[in-house]
Amino acid sequence: MILEHVHRLSNQRIVLASASPRRKEIFQNIGLRIKVVPSLFEENLDKSQFSSAAAYAQETALQKAREVSNRAWTPNNIPHLVIGADTVVELQGSILEKPKDAANAEAMLSSLIGQRHAVHTGVAIIIPSVTGKDGELFTRSFTSTTSVEFDKVSLSEIRAYIDTGEPFGKAGAYGIQGPAGAWVKRIEGCYFNVMGFPLHDFAAEVAALLQCGHLQ
Amino acid sequence: MILEHVHRLSNQRIVLASASPRRKEIFQNIGLRIKVVPSLFEENLDKSQFSSAAAYAQETALQKAREVSNRAWTPNNIPHLVIGADTVVELQGSILEKPKDAANAEAMLSSLIGQRHAVHTGVAIIIPSVTGKDGELFTRSFTSTTSVEFDKVSLSEIRAYIDTGEPFGKAGAYGIQGPAGAWVKRIEGCYFNVMGFPLHDFAAEVAALLQCGHLQ
Repeated sequence: MILEHVHRLSNQRIVLASASPRRKEIFQNIGLRIKVVPSLFEENLDKSQFSSAAAYAQETALQKAREVSNRAWTPNNIPHLVIGADTVVELQGSILEKPKDAANAEAMLSSLIGQRHAVHTGVAIIIPSVTGKDGELFTRSFTSTTSVEFDKVSLSEIRAYIDTGEPFGKAGAYGIQGPAGAWVKRIEGCYFNVMGFPLHDFAAEVAALLQCGHLQ
Repeated sequence: MILEHVHRLSNQRIVLASASPRRKEIFQNIGLRIKVVPSLFEENLDKSQFSSAAAYAQETALQKAREVSNRAWTPNNIPHLVIGADTVVELQGSILEKPKDAANAEAMLSSLIGQRHAVHTGVAIIIPSVTGKDGELFTRSFTSTTSVEFDKVSLSEIRAYIDTGEPFGKAGAYGIQGPAGAWVKRIEGCYFNVMGFPLHDFAAEVAALLQCGHLQ
């Protein structure tokens, strides 16, 4: 799928339009060398304009990747691949993004415990060197959804977790790879998607792009 | 559950009767300080004597924890808690353990791709200072099962993975946290269980032991 092509891909300039250290770690885990160029897109889309939380995450991912792709790259520096991603937590129709402060994190986590929620990651892949008939850059985007079930935990447990500083900068105020992993009774879907990037779906997409020659 | 007690538990001598670096990492992730004392139990139980792969893993975990608990600990050194664990992969009724060599890893991985398999981890918790009426050490044991679905990948992909050296020392010849994570379409259950230790179920058990006073 992708492991057999890692060596070939190491000659490509792959740009991750995200500052998330978890996403970078996921790429490193499979041996893929990427360059991090955080997107300057403001992530201010109007949620009410989207039919679903997944559609919102997908469009945000697309805007992030587009902003980085459209920069004034010199011909020698132009990325072969730009990857955008956005992760949101959805609980009973509401979107939870990153908590503003400790009180906000406490409210988010209190709403998640004892419940099942969905984690959606939108991914956009842009190949800046390939342009369609309409002049648009070659783009693929998709979303991946994982269901996560939290056990019921006490308020003092939630506060002990907030004290670790972990909730900040994370959608839904938690990171499954850290201490909050202990609360997760079960997940259904891709684990890496909950960490912030749907590794399998991305690998399958890249394998398809290699096969059809859009990536060399 | 367990995070609110991590400080209290840091005064306890917690011994992990396993040399697995993945298990150690899982404990470190939740901030729990443990001492690694690999068990000398030979892991040679007769599989045909067990009603299920899960029962086999549970008994192996118990024997690992028992061997470490029964050592000649000095009174000042006796562990408060000894944890044993054993992970097996089950595919259509067959148990896959660690691969012997590259050919064995290739055979295991070739059988797993495009299929759904079960990962069972048996866990045993022994409190050496607590003895029942029958003179037996206080023991809790359980198993956790996660279903893992692999995508279909090519033989060259499998060989590229074996070349990384990752399959060796791992039940079923793969580690979900490394490059083979890209092959995993979905899991159902606890992710950490696939890594080698069912974090949530363990945390819930320890919380119960703290509540009933068996752990201080």
